[in-house]
Amino acid sequence: MNELLKTIIKNNRHWTSEGKVATYIPGLSNANPDALGICVTNLNGDEYCAGDFDTKFTVQSISKVVTLLLAILDQGKDKVFSKVGMEPTADAFNSMLTLENRNSHRPINPMINAGAIVTVSMVAGGSCDEAFNRILEFTRKITGNPEININESVYLSEKETGNRNRALAYFMKSTGAIEGNVEEVLDVYFRQCSIEATCKDIARIGAMLANDGILPWSGEEVVPKSVARIVKSIMATCGMYDASGKFAVHIGIPAKSGVGGGILASVPGKMGIGVLGPALDSIGNSIGGIKVLEELSRDMDLSIF
Amino acid sequence: MNELLKTIIKNNRHWTSEGKVATYIPGLSNANPDALGICVTNLNGDEYCAGDFDTKFTVQSISKVVTLLLAILDQGKDKVFSKVGMEPTADAFNSMLTLENRNSHRPINPMINAGAIVTVSMVAGGSCDEAFNRILEFTRKITGNPEININESVYLSEKETGNRNRALAYFMKSTGAIEGNVEEVLDVYFRQCSIEATCKDIARIGAMLANDGILPWSGEEVVPKSVARIVKSIMATCGMYDASGKFAVHIGIPAKSGVGGGILASVPGKMGIGVLGPALDSIGNSIGGIKVLEELSRDMDLSIF
Amino acid sequence: MNELLKTIIKNNRHWTSEGKVATYIPGLSNANPDALGICVTNLNGDEYCAGDFDTKFTVQSISKVVTLLLAILDQGKDKVFSKVGMEPTADAFNSMLTLENRNSHRPINPMINAGAIVTVSMVAGGSCDEAFNRILEFTRKITGNPEININESVYLSEKETGNRNRALAYFMKSTGAIEGNVEEVLDVYFRQCSIEATCKDIARIGAMLANDGILPWSGEEVVPKSVARIVKSIMATCGMYDASGKFAVHIGIPAKSGVGGGILASVPGKMGIGVLGPALDSIGNSIGGIKVLEELSRDMDLSIF
Amino acid sequence: MNELLKTIIKNNRHWTSEGKVATYIPGLSNANPDALGICVTNLNGDEYCAGDFDTKFTVQSISKVVTLLLAILDQGKDKVFSKVGMEPTADAFNSMLTLENRNSHRPINPMINAGAIVTVSMVAGGSCDEAFNRILEFTRKITGNPEININESVYLSEKETGNRNRALAYFMKSTGAIEGNVEEVLDVYFRQCSIEATCKDIARIGAMLANDGILPWSGEEVVPKSVARIVKSIMATCGMYDASGKFAVHIGIPAKSGVGGGILASVPGKMGIGVLGPALDSIGNSIGGIKVLEELSRDMDLSIF
Repeated sequence: MNELLKTIIKNNRHWTSEGKVATYIPGLSNANPDALGICVTNLNGDEYCAGDFDTKFTVQSISKVVTLLLAILDQGKDKVFSKVGMEPTADAFNSMLTLENRNSHRPINPMINAGAIVTVSMVAGGSCDEAFNRILEFTRKITGNPEININESVYLSEKETGNRNRALAYFMKSTGAIEGNVEEVLDVYFRQCSIEATCKDIARIGAMLANDGILPWSGEEVVPKSVARIVKSIMATCGMYDASGKFAVHIGIPAKSGVGGGILASVPGKMGIGVLGPALDSIGNSIGGIKVLEELSRDMDLSIF
Repeated sequence: MNELLKTIIKNNRHWTSEGKVATYIPGLSNANPDALGICVTNLNGDEYCAGDFDTKFTVQSISKVVTLLLAILDQGKDKVFSKVGMEPTADAFNSMLTLENRNSHRPINPMINAGAIVTVSMVAGGSCDEAFNRILEFTRKITGNPEININESVYLSEKETGNRNRALAYFMKSTGAIEGNVEEVLDVYFRQCSIEATCKDIARIGAMLANDGILPWSGEEVVPKSVARIVKSIMATCGMYDASGKFAVHIGIPAKSGVGGGILASVPGKMGIGVLGPALDSIGNSIGGIKVLEELSRDMDLSIF
Repeated sequence: MNELLKTIIKNNRHWTSEGKVATYIPGLSNANPDALGICVTNLNGDEYCAGDFDTKFTVQSISKVVTLLLAILDQGKDKVFSKVGMEPTADAFNSMLTLENRNSHRPINPMINAGAIVTVSMVAGGSCDEAFNRILEFTRKITGNPEININESVYLSEKETGNRNRALAYFMKSTGAIEGNVEEVLDVYFRQCSIEATCKDIARIGAMLANDGILPWSGEEVVPKSVARIVKSIMATCGMYDASGKFAVHIGIPAKSGVGGGILASVPGKMGIGVLGPALDSIGNSIGGIKVLEELSRDMDLSIF
Repeated sequence: MNELLKTIIKNNRHWTSEGKVATYIPGLSNANPDALGICVTNLNGDEYCAGDFDTKFTVQSISKVVTLLLAILDQGKDKVFSKVGMEPTADAFNSMLTLENRNSHRPINPMINAGAIVTVSMVAGGSCDEAFNRILEFTRKITGNPEININESVYLSEKETGNRNRALAYFMKSTGAIEGNVEEVLDVYFRQCSIEATCKDIARIGAMLANDGILPWSGEEVVPKSVARIVKSIMATCGMYDASGKFAVHIGIPAKSGVGGGILASVPGKMGIGVLGPALDSIGNSIGGIKVLEELSRDMDLSIF
């Protein structure tokens, strides 16, 4: 297995030169565009890695999966999905159109920014510090890594340049989709995007989901099976931005990408996969990461379809 | 199994009274709103049925799955997907917005009307009669039912009242998305929507897809595994109109519905399912059919996630 | 006055080289891109001309003004404006968005294609031939030119290539915005777009409107003052496609352009102006024609603001 | 003249009961829904008034006219219109669609909120206090009323509840359409909306514009003729929200309304008109105010068309 992963990384490393590292905030633009790494965690907790598997990156949109899990645990799925939908959309992840044109009281799904901001606002906690700490602790638990933390400089950059997200949030405040203090909700959102992890950490989240909510390394159930399923199905239809359909056809695995270059993938009943490749395609997905997943899926026949 | 299906039909029959039969064409409005039926075909070819499983209905949008298979067989997937995309959309199935706002040369997926019309235009055949006959023959083959035919009066109604589809087609003609004669392409489209089938026929198509393109009852491969997979993944992300995300979360099975009240579902590696319930919800899906599939999926743990 | 016009034509002729003749139908692409002409008709019926004032061109969208007048005469303004709005829009003249996104039963104004097609459908006449003949006769009357006729080859081209307009019309048929036979309504629309005229003819229509509906050369009232005013105000807010606002600011005269290169302008209480310049800007207005009107408006202080 | 105005107010007072006072901020909802007043100022500076002509109201969107004048004086028209367009739109005044769908770097006109916020950002001043003081001083000068001031409680309400405007502003910050500090620009915007005036004050602004930028009561030129014209033409095409076209047809006078119930109208070469009627129609225009202007325009034949 380690050999297979090594070969796949080698076969696809050249793709990284066709993508571009995200530049909208300084912290992201410093990433190594050539990096490419993968880690696979099976349901016994065995881990297989290759390439730049221990390079840290900020999880960015991958955090949307974590917060969705936590918000459902905190509020129940009925409450959560009364505030955010579960339909895929062909609109871009930061589109305001989707909000204004459709249901302005309920963003279309929790994987686009508007939906994720609403989801963040539903994480329990008396203050924004407490809400974020709960997200951080939950992330540490489902990765089995107590050292997970945020990248301060990325967080500060996000906060300074996040005007598009501010626009989404104030719009939703005006329609009642968000309750509470907008700047505090955004602060939690910017912080969770800035959480740093490696392929290993990400693969473990995928493995927990693949294992129906049970941590493979400890047997502890951290989320109920039904919740793990909801999240995997939303990843499958909405997880790869407006390339989710293409990803389903070519790879066929529930996944969520982030502009930090990471991809979290979860093969139900089989394994979790964490991939890193900071060079992105035009849609914002890791260009090399997708190719790595495509080859792995084909070689191991992982498509759920 | 027959007992289980019987119970499920009985448990969910009451839902039909909360939906409405499609009325936009006379042929559809004549359907029995209380009808509810199911047929399951496993990969050995065994068939289990309950309720109004032998009631005929017009397949309507379910035909989009058949034509997509045939168009890929005829032209290859690269050609087909250069003309029609594979992304889910939150827009309605007959939206022109999606066309004008995004890529006017390539409708967003083959499960919305615009995309299906383009797909129809790629079915081989020297004339529109020949193209339709190939669709009809292919439908007969994958259902194992040589008596499949169209409902003439529904076809004539579709043709007479199909101005929204005409608008989509002329728009695409003006952008070059459709080649050939618009009225002829539409004629094939209206005819394929008017093909009549029963739950049994539909279940068999689902079983063929579940069986990676091989007819369970004869062992014949009618489409390559890779093509069956493409179609199942597009069904999973785009098959249930703008409720595809919700369907993935609650049921988790690739499926395609039609306004005639039918739903074609395919559980990879397990079974095909055909459901009928002409009373529709506000989105255009069979209201009872969805409930039946939800209970079956839960009872038999069929979700792919 | 003739001297002034001659100078203005001379000063602005060079602008024609920065535009492009419409090419979407053969008949239009044959126009001379360097042509530039003007005719002014005052309320005494005096006519002043310069440049290519007697070059024939097809009126295209300028016909929308004529049909709007006739439809109001035939049906009354309440009926007409129950079927078509009077608001300016920033959407393009052939946009379907405007239809689907706003009021699909009532196109936004009679100067965009969708609104003009609805307006055409309200011109009285037992058949499409009769309706068109009434439009033609009315055009002859308000231009004082009994020899006005259509350009057959442009008409046939329009008809053959008019799929975008067909899409608009079938869409409106599906929503009930258009009654009657779509192809017949479109036939009248394509014919009226193909009416040929010169700057002189156009200037006379403008003079009639400027004179509150009375033909300056005969004293005959052809439309009531109130109707002339409605049409001038719609020209002022909607007449120059999505450059109507800019035109109001820079020139300040109610006007309507066509892709044949003509512009009909009407200075209330003062004069009518007809301009020709087939080279168009990116929005579809005569590039030289606008410059000619701008200089004339400035020199003679014609802005209504 | 005073008699005519008195009659018109009397004739139209009943319309106020068919509208509703704006309620989105407390300060506005306190307005008297039955109030209806008018003041006319001719180019000699004579003033004629009737009804509730001396009731104070906050100018709200009418301030957009004042800031546009000042921004052009400060930066020149080329600079201003490189940052904000001049096209009418059928979208609502607080639409984000218009921003995202069209040119996200340049809001479509200065009479919608997005465009007005950009215009505010172009008013000269080293700080937001200084910029606002310049707007206030300019308002005092063109109304000839040194006592004009803001309504503090309305300002505070606007600021607290202005999340939709915040969304617009942060969106424009993210695209570069706005430079400088968003909250400071918004603060000036909220303050100028809260300026209090009476019909008399408003009529004087209209008279100055009608008089090509010269104050009728002093003969002082406060803006050049060309700038007065630009602003009148933008009022004519964009001033009455998405009822601007209808207003042009029925009334035919450049005008700008505010949700405080005021309407500023300017009949070129003739007079300025100020109207108040806090009960609004569904679009946000004073329902009684429009009727009053309609009757006045008809009686005195004021339409510019």
